Amino acid sequence: MRASVFFSPDEVEPAAVAERTAIVIDVIRATSTIVSALAAGARAVHPAISTEDALKLASSLGRDQTLLCGERKGLKVEGFDLGNSPAEFTPDVVDGKQLVMSTTNGTRALHAALAAERVVVASFLNLDAVARAVADDGGLVVVCAGKEGRFSLDDAVCAGHLFERVRTARAGELELDDAALACVTLASDYEPEADFLAKTAAGRALIEVGLGDDLETCASVDRYDFAPEMRDRTIRIP
Amino acid sequence: MRASVFFSPDEVEPAAVAERTAIVIDVIRATSTIVSALAAGARAVHPAISTEDALKLASSLGRDQTLLCGERKGLKVEGFDLGNSPAEFTPDVVDGKQLVMSTTNGTRALHAALAAERVVVASFLNLDAVARAVADDGGLVVVCAGKEGRFSLDDAVCAGHLFERVRTARAGELELDDAALACVTLASDYEPEADFLAKTAAGRALIEVGLGDDLETCASVDRYDFAPEMRDRTIRIP
Repeated sequence: MRASVFFSPDEVEPAAVAERTAIVIDVIRATSTIVSALAAGARAVHPAISTEDALKLASSLGRDQTLLCGERKGLKVEGFDLGNSPAEFTPDVVDGKQLVMSTTNGTRALHAALAAERVVVASFLNLDAVARAVADDGGLVVVCAGKEGRFSLDDAVCAGHLFERVRTARAGELELDDAALACVTLASDYEPEADFLAKTAAGRALIEVGLGDDLETCASVDRYDFAPEMRDRTIRIP
Repeated sequence: MRASVFFSPDEVEPAAVAERTAIVIDVIRATSTIVSALAAGARAVHPAISTEDALKLASSLGRDQTLLCGERKGLKVEGFDLGNSPAEFTPDVVDGKQLVMSTTNGTRALHAALAAERVVVASFLNLDAVARAVADDGGLVVVCAGKEGRFSLDDAVCAGHLFERVRTARAGELELDDAALACVTLASDYEPEADFLAKTAAGRALIEVGLGDDLETCASVDRYDFAPEMRDRTIRIP
């Protein structure tokens, strides 16, 4: 099985993901938040690139049925219902609701993966479930959200830990490209812990805006046992 | 001192390198070859993005005074004097000559660095000389050539070993961005050896076209003691 990694959505060309399974990772914080929201009972998450698109989509879905969520520079978008902290997405707030979400990097990564055969949403919170879900697929491409078009260490380390689990879950070897090999190597150096996340650029930025508590949640390995999928631009538990 | 890494020239915006020292790395093989050529007595190397630009530049410089060199898909460009193997650039061939060079990734990385305050050409062959040359500069940006817009493990590991030597050469700490921190971590896992280079995508591609012997040269750490600089689009030993 071939396994590749793109460190930012900007690198992704549709041909590179076509006929493969794309796994989208934005540890700090979009995919950690999406997984938390679905675990708390949200029916579906609709990613939107811009806040304008998010507003339009929310109105077409029925504004009263929909929670608008997302961030710019880490903070809740003005007029939105929720930001991008996993902790906000509790059952009393999101159970039974559909969410429209727009974040700086994560939703761009989801859009970059649209041409894939299958799109799975991963984070440390559901690492093992994703590894089992994709272990028998034909080829894997991880699309990291990165940070404004650049490499993010937290996403790369998450991808590396994921590949290690995929290796355990399947019999065959993984053929890693350079980026995937770098991720596996980095995963042997960095454990998924809040202290590690606090060293990354995204972690430091989050601490600066007073949201450092989220890092503990984003590092909660295997808290949930499901692998959300995106079909028709909508993310659900399959 | 801030230290950043771009894993491919596509990521580089002029503002990101302005007022800093850019260090261009293409281990397999452009910067290894440029360093070898200058060590063998070449007067100057003029990078050119396209083979057409290379031909024009060679004619404006005086075709009989100039060697045209470079590769596409690893192999010498038809009609050029030399390819991109360090081993071709011996004193009897290049001493006193000026070279015009066009390669798939390396010359693009050099062009991406043009907006920098200072541009230094690095490879494993002159790692320590580069570390000493840049140790007191205000800020460092490594521009990796990568491979067709993607991450290359060989360039990243070279950047990591370079930062370790910069740390030794200066008193102050380095403030590493995520990519630079990943490089330093990867450098602790991978020694600069031909066996390591043979595992990378660029190394495997070179072996496939029958040029695997170059890997031994590209891994010859500190064979030379100079740090070439690019000024006015011309690379020389300062």
